[in-house]
Amino acid sequence: MTEPARRGLFVTIEGGDGAGKSTQAALLEEWLIEAGRTVVRTREPGGTDFGLEVREIVLHSRGHITARAEALLYAADRAQHIATKVRPALERGEVVIQDRYIDSSVAYQGAGRVLDGSEIRRLSEWATEDLRPDLTILIDLDEDLARQRLNNAEKRFDRLEAEKNDFHRRVRESFLSIASSEPDRFVVVDGALPAGEISTLIRARLAPLLFSPAG
Amino acid sequence: MTEPARRGLFVTIEGGDGAGKSTQAALLEEWLIEAGRTVVRTREPGGTDFGLEVREIVLHSRGHITARAEALLYAADRAQHIATKVRPALERGEVVIQDRYIDSSVAYQGAGRVLDGSEIRRLSEWATEDLRPDLTILIDLDEDLARQRLNNAEKRFDRLEAEKNDFHRRVRESFLSIASSEPDRFVVVDGALPAGEISTLIRARLAPLLFSPAG
Repeated sequence: MTEPARRGLFVTIEGGDGAGKSTQAALLEEWLIEAGRTVVRTREPGGTDFGLEVREIVLHSRGHITARAEALLYAADRAQHIATKVRPALERGEVVIQDRYIDSSVAYQGAGRVLDGSEIRRLSEWATEDLRPDLTILIDLDEDLARQRLNNAEKRFDRLEAEKNDFHRRVRESFLSIASSEPDRFVVVDGALPAGEISTLIRARLAPLLFSPAG
Repeated sequence: MTEPARRGLFVTIEGGDGAGKSTQAALLEEWLIEAGRTVVRTREPGGTDFGLEVREIVLHSRGHITARAEALLYAADRAQHIATKVRPALERGEVVIQDRYIDSSVAYQGAGRVLDGSEIRRLSEWATEDLRPDLTILIDLDEDLARQRLNNAEKRFDRLEAEKNDFHRRVRESFLSIASSEPDRFVVVDGALPAGEISTLIRARLAPLLFSPAG
């Protein structure tokens, strides 16, 4: 008699830069490992060697990249990442915690008002053969507070981070709009709360998925 | 009184490796320059600096790239290339002669039987905002003859060229099938003919487009 296959879980964390995604990913990983689960922490873009090369082109290209070319590059990274890293982990019954996924592409590209968010989503769904997260954590934070945190960290801003606050406000609105249209997939937490409280909220929402019998 | 804007023309050349695309592109360019036209000769992948980086990832990546990731990378290259090089040239009234375009993607990816040709076309149409060639020259050549020519040239084969003959037969069939479905856009020439004869056939087909009044 073999043990029934453990159910893999795909958890994505979304939100603007400075919202605290990395902190929550680390806390979540720790908790899951204590619960005996194998965890894969990953990110987009850059979760594979291929993705690092793509990320390099996008973030530090000297020339101007058109919006469509950029969207397609991100989709290429995503296709490779999901097929070679995420799906195999889920098939092994592991928990994948991923920093940014399709919702980020929709929110960032769509909020730039150049490309339509629904086109971006369709592109990513094609790239990933429609792999959907079991749970998406949106850490929602006022853009002024997020900017303040990033300034305090004194890290060098990359191209995206250097965009204006108005853009970040549109990104935030876009994230909230996506979340409200898919309440079953999302848990929205207030990024202004202490990290420990946010983590508790996330665990409460994740627990039923984690300990339910294999589907 | 200003001269009416000259009509830009977008000509693509398709066919398998070894069919003689470069030779015909050179002869066509020469003829067009003699006719007083400004010509831009370009290629995909690799027609921009951005494209060269993308080409580098695709052709010489050490790891395996999934079919979807590869298709998306080529589409990214195409988006950038068309937006920054081809469209501006056409808007200046120039003639663009391009080695490989969407039909190549459809023929090569589709013939690999991994991805559906129509999906590949849709992806490229999104990437290029649906820029269609005024004329596509398909140089059709028996795959054994093409292979023989390439062997004679003793050039190092890249990954695509190293694929088996069976694959090249499917590519050829796919090109012919596309051409027969769009007879107005295509001129199909027999790649086994002498280069001069092929060139004459191409000129005959191109001339009416070239010298017609601006549309």
